[in-house]
Amino acid sequence: MIGAIEAGGTKFVCAVGEKATDLRDRIVIPTRQPKETMAEVIAYFKKHEPLEAIGIASFGPIEVDKTSDYYGYITTTPKAGWENYDLLSPLKDAFPGTELAFDTDVNGAALGEYTHGAGQDVRSVLYLTVGTGVGGGFVSDGEIRNGYGHPEMGHILVTRRSDDNYKSRCPYHSHCLEGLAAGPTVAGRLGKSSHEIDASHPVFEAIADYLGQALVSYTVTLRPERIVIGGGLMKVPGLLDKVCQAFEKDLNGYLPIPKDYITSPALGDDAGITGAFLLGQEALLKE
Amino acid sequence: MIGAIEAGGTKFVCAVGEKATDLRDRIVIPTRQPKETMAEVIAYFKKHEPLEAIGIASFGPIEVDKTSDYYGYITTTPKAGWENYDLLSPLKDAFPGTELAFDTDVNGAALGEYTHGAGQDVRSVLYLTVGTGVGGGFVSDGEIRNGYGHPEMGHILVTRRSDDNYKSRCPYHSHCLEGLAAGPTVAGRLGKSSHEIDASHPVFEAIADYLGQALVSYTVTLRPERIVIGGGLMKVPGLLDKVCQAFEKDLNGYLPIPKDYITSPALGDDAGITGAFLLGQEALLKE
Repeated sequence: MIGAIEAGGTKFVCAVGEKATDLRDRIVIPTRQPKETMAEVIAYFKKHEPLEAIGIASFGPIEVDKTSDYYGYITTTPKAGWENYDLLSPLKDAFPGTELAFDTDVNGAALGEYTHGAGQDVRSVLYLTVGTGVGGGFVSDGEIRNGYGHPEMGHILVTRRSDDNYKSRCPYHSHCLEGLAAGPTVAGRLGKSSHEIDASHPVFEAIADYLGQALVSYTVTLRPERIVIGGGLMKVPGLLDKVCQAFEKDLNGYLPIPKDYITSPALGDDAGITGAFLLGQEALLKE
Repeated sequence: MIGAIEAGGTKFVCAVGEKATDLRDRIVIPTRQPKETMAEVIAYFKKHEPLEAIGIASFGPIEVDKTSDYYGYITTTPKAGWENYDLLSPLKDAFPGTELAFDTDVNGAALGEYTHGAGQDVRSVLYLTVGTGVGGGFVSDGEIRNGYGHPEMGHILVTRRSDDNYKSRCPYHSHCLEGLAAGPTVAGRLGKSSHEIDASHPVFEAIADYLGQALVSYTVTLRPERIVIGGGLMKVPGLLDKVCQAFEKDLNGYLPIPKDYITSPALGDDAGITGAFLLGQEALLKE
């Protein structure tokens, strides 16, 4: 049996199973303070011992360098109580014989979609989530591609539209993708949630424009064979089509694009927990 | 003995040697029509037979997918006579027992700098050339990172400055890096070559701004441990410093940046031919 944790800023999803495609039990734990939350996580997995491995796909930024003293930490998050939090140690202490694997939620989702979702038939998947924040993960030939730390794709720079004077939500960048196109920018611009409107609303001209620009820049840099876009904002009906149109307009035929290039997650909201399971399974295989 | 070809739009550099750091003989052949040029290339290597391998680092776009019928082709280049040219076949025919390896000039340069140049002490190198065109290659853990084709990093999108109304040199994109910051944009803007001016000239405010933006976007996408920037335009004294300043301003402290992050090629103009040799050597080792 392998355990999986999708650690998010709002909720922790925990699951156990023998196969990624057949998670036999799961629980959802609201994200409160680390001690409380992790006590519930540990209590859940204790009921399912023995576990050969636990894979964790976490919100970030996190430390993914195994040679670092801070490996397994959530680092500079603005989420109160979780800054510089050592998420791996309580699990290590509670499950001493269990292999642990730790990576970002979006890298996990990219691995999930690559292995069992919308990227099963291709060699590389860029997974992008557009929700409270914007983040991306890249899997190529079965491997998560981190570098000097994990990608921070939400902070790619885009050109602000001349008709958009919305103040960036990113405290660092006046015109990065997350600052101008994350879910909360819709409510920020309109004073109402994106659930109340559809993609024909003018605000989505801007959102789709920024996403289209970013997808061109990711494309020329990484050359993924497929791009999977999930996250809460992408559930707005019609938005994915608008993003595809903006991408095509900006790329302007410069490169041959693989078929079914930009798509929704086939695993839906299960991309992350599936990926977390796969992280655990991989750690076990490497061991 | 291994052969190396750096195939450029202006010249082909060919060399032979036993070690990448000790290329014992080389020749420079002006790039004319393919038949003429390749006849000289083949004649050169014939003098140095037997060769165990020949590595080719070529201008592009090229086909790098070994499963494609067009592997070894230069594809959609605007260079007259070289469009859809099968560069590998004449070499295969002339040297039937010799391993051949084929990748882009910038991937070659990235591999050269990673192995023997400015990236010897790090795990990943992004190599960017800013010359007649702009192109990039990425090597991580010793491996060239191509995807669905090789990167086309010169076409990353940047935000045009409000004081810059220069028409993009890129026929596809009104505000990609190559269109606004390649070497010929200097002469295009000023009517004189960049050799006559230094980095204090106002035109380099714009060039450095665009390069800084692009380096931020590459950084958040790839997380390289080092960025090496070469190419003719980067020989303008003081320009690299300006690019570093623009990068820091745009990144705005969001990420921890590795030491000596942005630098010039340690191999200088030999990055490409060194990389070509290494491509040949790797092909031999894999065989």
